[in-house]
Amino acid sequence: MVAEVKVSELRGAGDVTLAERETPQPAEGEVLVEVGSVGVCGSDVHYYEHGRIGPYVVESPLVLGHEAGGVVAAAGPRATALSVGQRVSIEPGVPCRDCAQCLAGRYNLCPGVKFLATPPHDGAFSQYVVMPAQFVHPVPDTVSDDAAGLLEPLSVGIWACRRARVSPGRAVLVTGAGPIGLIAAQTARAFGASSVTVTDVNPHRLRLAGKLGLDAIDVSGTSLAQAGIEPDVLIECSGNAGATWEAVSVMARAGTAVLVGMGADEVRLPLPRVQDRELVITGAFRYANTWPTAIELAASGRVDLDSVVTGHFGLADVEAALMASRSDPAAVKVMVRPGR
Amino acid sequence: MVAEVKVSELRGAGDVTLAERETPQPAEGEVLVEVGSVGVCGSDVHYYEHGRIGPYVVESPLVLGHEAGGVVAAAGPRATALSVGQRVSIEPGVPCRDCAQCLAGRYNLCPGVKFLATPPHDGAFSQYVVMPAQFVHPVPDTVSDDAAGLLEPLSVGIWACRRARVSPGRAVLVTGAGPIGLIAAQTARAFGASSVTVTDVNPHRLRLAGKLGLDAIDVSGTSLAQAGIEPDVLIECSGNAGATWEAVSVMARAGTAVLVGMGADEVRLPLPRVQDRELVITGAFRYANTWPTAIELAASGRVDLDSVVTGHFGLADVEAALMASRSDPAAVKVMVRPGR
Amino acid sequence: MVAEVKVSELRGAGDVTLAERETPQPAEGEVLVEVGSVGVCGSDVHYYEHGRIGPYVVESPLVLGHEAGGVVAAAGPRATALSVGQRVSIEPGVPCRDCAQCLAGRYNLCPGVKFLATPPHDGAFSQYVVMPAQFVHPVPDTVSDDAAGLLEPLSVGIWACRRARVSPGRAVLVTGAGPIGLIAAQTARAFGASSVTVTDVNPHRLRLAGKLGLDAIDVSGTSLAQAGIEPDVLIECSGNAGATWEAVSVMARAGTAVLVGMGADEVRLPLPRVQDRELVITGAFRYANTWPTAIELAASGRVDLDSVVTGHFGLADVEAALMASRSDPAAVKVMVRPGR
Amino acid sequence: MVAEVKVSELRGAGDVTLAERETPQPAEGEVLVEVGSVGVCGSDVHYYEHGRIGPYVVESPLVLGHEAGGVVAAAGPRATALSVGQRVSIEPGVPCRDCAQCLAGRYNLCPGVKFLATPPHDGAFSQYVVMPAQFVHPVPDTVSDDAAGLLEPLSVGIWACRRARVSPGRAVLVTGAGPIGLIAAQTARAFGASSVTVTDVNPHRLRLAGKLGLDAIDVSGTSLAQAGIEPDVLIECSGNAGATWEAVSVMARAGTAVLVGMGADEVRLPLPRVQDRELVITGAFRYANTWPTAIELAASGRVDLDSVVTGHFGLADVEAALMASRSDPAAVKVMVRPGR
Repeated sequence: MVAEVKVSELRGAGDVTLAERETPQPAEGEVLVEVGSVGVCGSDVHYYEHGRIGPYVVESPLVLGHEAGGVVAAAGPRATALSVGQRVSIEPGVPCRDCAQCLAGRYNLCPGVKFLATPPHDGAFSQYVVMPAQFVHPVPDTVSDDAAGLLEPLSVGIWACRRARVSPGRAVLVTGAGPIGLIAAQTARAFGASSVTVTDVNPHRLRLAGKLGLDAIDVSGTSLAQAGIEPDVLIECSGNAGATWEAVSVMARAGTAVLVGMGADEVRLPLPRVQDRELVITGAFRYANTWPTAIELAASGRVDLDSVVTGHFGLADVEAALMASRSDPAAVKVMVRPGR
Repeated sequence: MVAEVKVSELRGAGDVTLAERETPQPAEGEVLVEVGSVGVCGSDVHYYEHGRIGPYVVESPLVLGHEAGGVVAAAGPRATALSVGQRVSIEPGVPCRDCAQCLAGRYNLCPGVKFLATPPHDGAFSQYVVMPAQFVHPVPDTVSDDAAGLLEPLSVGIWACRRARVSPGRAVLVTGAGPIGLIAAQTARAFGASSVTVTDVNPHRLRLAGKLGLDAIDVSGTSLAQAGIEPDVLIECSGNAGATWEAVSVMARAGTAVLVGMGADEVRLPLPRVQDRELVITGAFRYANTWPTAIELAASGRVDLDSVVTGHFGLADVEAALMASRSDPAAVKVMVRPGR
Repeated sequence: MVAEVKVSELRGAGDVTLAERETPQPAEGEVLVEVGSVGVCGSDVHYYEHGRIGPYVVESPLVLGHEAGGVVAAAGPRATALSVGQRVSIEPGVPCRDCAQCLAGRYNLCPGVKFLATPPHDGAFSQYVVMPAQFVHPVPDTVSDDAAGLLEPLSVGIWACRRARVSPGRAVLVTGAGPIGLIAAQTARAFGASSVTVTDVNPHRLRLAGKLGLDAIDVSGTSLAQAGIEPDVLIECSGNAGATWEAVSVMARAGTAVLVGMGADEVRLPLPRVQDRELVITGAFRYANTWPTAIELAASGRVDLDSVVTGHFGLADVEAALMASRSDPAAVKVMVRPGR
Repeated sequence: MVAEVKVSELRGAGDVTLAERETPQPAEGEVLVEVGSVGVCGSDVHYYEHGRIGPYVVESPLVLGHEAGGVVAAAGPRATALSVGQRVSIEPGVPCRDCAQCLAGRYNLCPGVKFLATPPHDGAFSQYVVMPAQFVHPVPDTVSDDAAGLLEPLSVGIWACRRARVSPGRAVLVTGAGPIGLIAAQTARAFGASSVTVTDVNPHRLRLAGKLGLDAIDVSGTSLAQAGIEPDVLIECSGNAGATWEAVSVMARAGTAVLVGMGADEVRLPLPRVQDRELVITGAFRYANTWPTAIELAASGRVDLDSVVTGHFGLADVEAALMASRSDPAAVKVMVRPGR
């Protein structure tokens, strides 16, 4: 292994630079992963544009990227479950495992979680990262390098489907056909949903939804009510206030809405509808205990992750990757390949 | 039985009149109940003030009142489970029992429900009402005449506690110390909640909360955050937008908020809090399968319904009862006694 | 319509006769169904062999058969949701809709249910049956005549999967590859189970399981432990005491076993395993609210019902159908076609 | 602190001896607790009589006792949440927090748990024990020294009530009025159960049940059916095969039975009842996340732990304590006080 590794640093809003850092060493129970492919997430773009997300401020150079897979390059003491050369997917949040949330199995709500690419913790736009072995999951060869990284957004979809109890007999609406929406919709189908409808206004994304075998509706020209949509489950992935209001307004009695799309400080909901129909509205914050299921869904082909990838960039081109992800209407999921 | 019965009719906004009607006759499976005591609900006041609630418009004379108890005066054919003279409590919503909601056990969400005092169905500000025997529940002598009527708001409290899964280990906040809030808070205590805190700004109501053994906070002078409140369960009974926002903002991780208070067209919620803490927000629409439990809680004294009663009016004074309920700051639950 | 209809009567153990009866007339809310195809169930065979099942004794001529589909031949007053000529599937249990179980949504547990082919209620080995319209479900043309009848055992599979919360991430074991086992296993796959394994000792059935794309294990030659089976969910369809004990013994922590197979008076379970692993053991009694989902699963091809059919018999040959179902090792699901 | 501590060692079946050991030192994150009072559990008696429980064999001197409270005597590095002199209750099972069960919040099912007084881990019949600070819970002064130890069996009761979803509206039967039964019954009452009935044949225990305000039935002279018992929830604490069969046989539809009583290799259940009534049968293995609730219930007086204590013994008299617990019909919970 080399003494120095290349990383892409965000030094402030709009300031991305290739840098070199000392190669990290795995401590007890940790492994060193040579990063293969990393997805660009909306949160990466937000840090790039604004230098912060809410209370999380980039105060020193930050490595972005948290949707990552790769190959085990070295294992620290007692990290015996993984061997060098093993292809893996990284679960990017490491909870404390000591607090009330962790002990209750809600480790995604751990207040002490260390999450890749969330200040002050560096992410995976880097040749190598060190992680506790427990959060590094082996993947079979039927999961591609890109898909190994995209098990992270797939976990978001699984978590949303679990929180909404998607199953046969439930009609699902997914608002927003971005990467999360397209993956969540496929996940809902794998959970056996009676029907899955995806909405967006972007023709590229609607076309991709169709290619993935999903029912897609262009809501620039029709309302959900006109389209006869009355979902039992809403997985809101657009983060758009109007779309959220409209979708909740057409939900069936006793339905469940999971608000996945982020960005706003508030959400407005039609109160009489929530009350009279006893809708359940909730959020999905990351995920817990999802990787084994994500690996199954991807490896069996029930969820197609590779088809949402629309571009690859090297470590020197992270800024271009971020800009494509933000501005290119034809871009869905953009990947960074540090080894390229 | 007399040929004519006295009823109190709402003939339009602000127009309440005593009238006579033909005595109703119980058909097969029905009973005739001589009404003993009926609580005045906020919805009665709303119809009185506005002549409508949302889509429900008073187009012909409407008898208000749906929180009612009394005595069985006559039984129709096959209504064998009840005998004349039996003291009873009326469950005011009669669902169709044929639709998907009814068959799924969510009969409170039945689109075809017939609910007392909701146009075009008359209510119980009347000497007699006819009801299907199945929705007329016998009460023991430890349940007073007023309490027999108030099993209806107690059912609202039970339903809210069930939806929120109140149990030992859960801290409960009830916002709003009106009749529903005071009853729901006692109910939460009977469900074993670790702590129950009630908030209001009305000193009469706060004093009554204290008398009922509840922790009461005057939120005119302090914020929930200052008071160190971090509830696992919120039962929102104020219908106040600011109170709702503040209460949701202090909720503990994985908490559940049940929105009971009505009146507004929308509810605004702090989205990042809902998402990051995976709060569950839902409504409680009436109740289903609550009467047996309501009878137990009232009969055993675990919930004190009589103490929330602050006044009694005769059938000729329904307008005074409605005005007291609306405007008297010292009024909590006002009862109408048709036989008085 | 003819004045008389042909029916197959069971007049006592081992005594099946073709008879004529007056054509039944649909009353208010009912429809007359011309029966197309009816599955032979183990309970039909049991009545044929023993003249009773537990407390249910054949005391007067009984028409067997409760897995039935057909075509609406006439509609009674107010049965407006169905039109003559509509292809339908019959839900054979009609609950009272008035008792505590019905109001709670557990109408399968209604003590007053009237169930086809359970004394004293006649079943569907008949040219025509009358049913309440609400329990007669329209089916699309992608559901065959046989499949319309087999939505009944499919409902058993759906109910078992719901009670066990089958979903992606759960490994399912189905013990017994008879009709119920083969249908339940396909249902579990449609619910997204991570893996579904079916066991039996009958090579015909194991072969059919394989043809349906299921993992099948011949347990005459290997133990579940040897085969490395450690299921999260067990759907026990064999009714065999040894198979049940062994299957429960290999279940994973916090797993759920649904006991579907019937016949014995008692079940013996390994107590330390149930306790130390906190297994959940329960029964599945018929089903509630399953037909819409059953129609979807069959119509979409996610569950293949036609492939489990191994023979067809006319109304005059019901006895031969019962004997084939009981004794032919190659028989899986035998159908009676009254119109044949 | 002294260099040597007194402990009571079990050296084999029937062989209990007072011994001295080096005083243990708290490592990072651990505390040293001076043991105040320790309950004698049936498992302690079983080890004493048989030298083993199933696969757990006493192969070297074992310190028994796992229901313990005391005072913090010293704190290791980083064990900052607890201060010397703090009165505490010990949660005796320390899970790995790394396995799938731990991450899912089911840390009681952790295969790697280290549990006090389970070979090879020593227990608390000792002047001092060392524990991770996280599993040492501060108690207020309203919790007595004995009660601090008995939060452990109270946790068993809480866990059983949680698994059975005890709440208002549910009738609860507790079979067996030993320490666990008497505590679980009080816990069910604190969870708001509509009724709680306890059964036993031991008049001392039945009398104590009555003193605790519980409905108690002597089943030596009557059957549950004769007594009109039809519980929604069964908490089986007798470990008796006949009592279990009878209790399950009278359960109400959709009821839940939690099997707490141990000792047998198998449990026999009435299969038709389990199936036709869709009973849920499960075990409760220790507990998870119960201490905060246990402290509340004991501190508030909702569960009276002190009243089940029938005797105290010093460390030199552990054998007498074990024999009293096993053989004295008037003994309920016997406590060992190492400092006595």
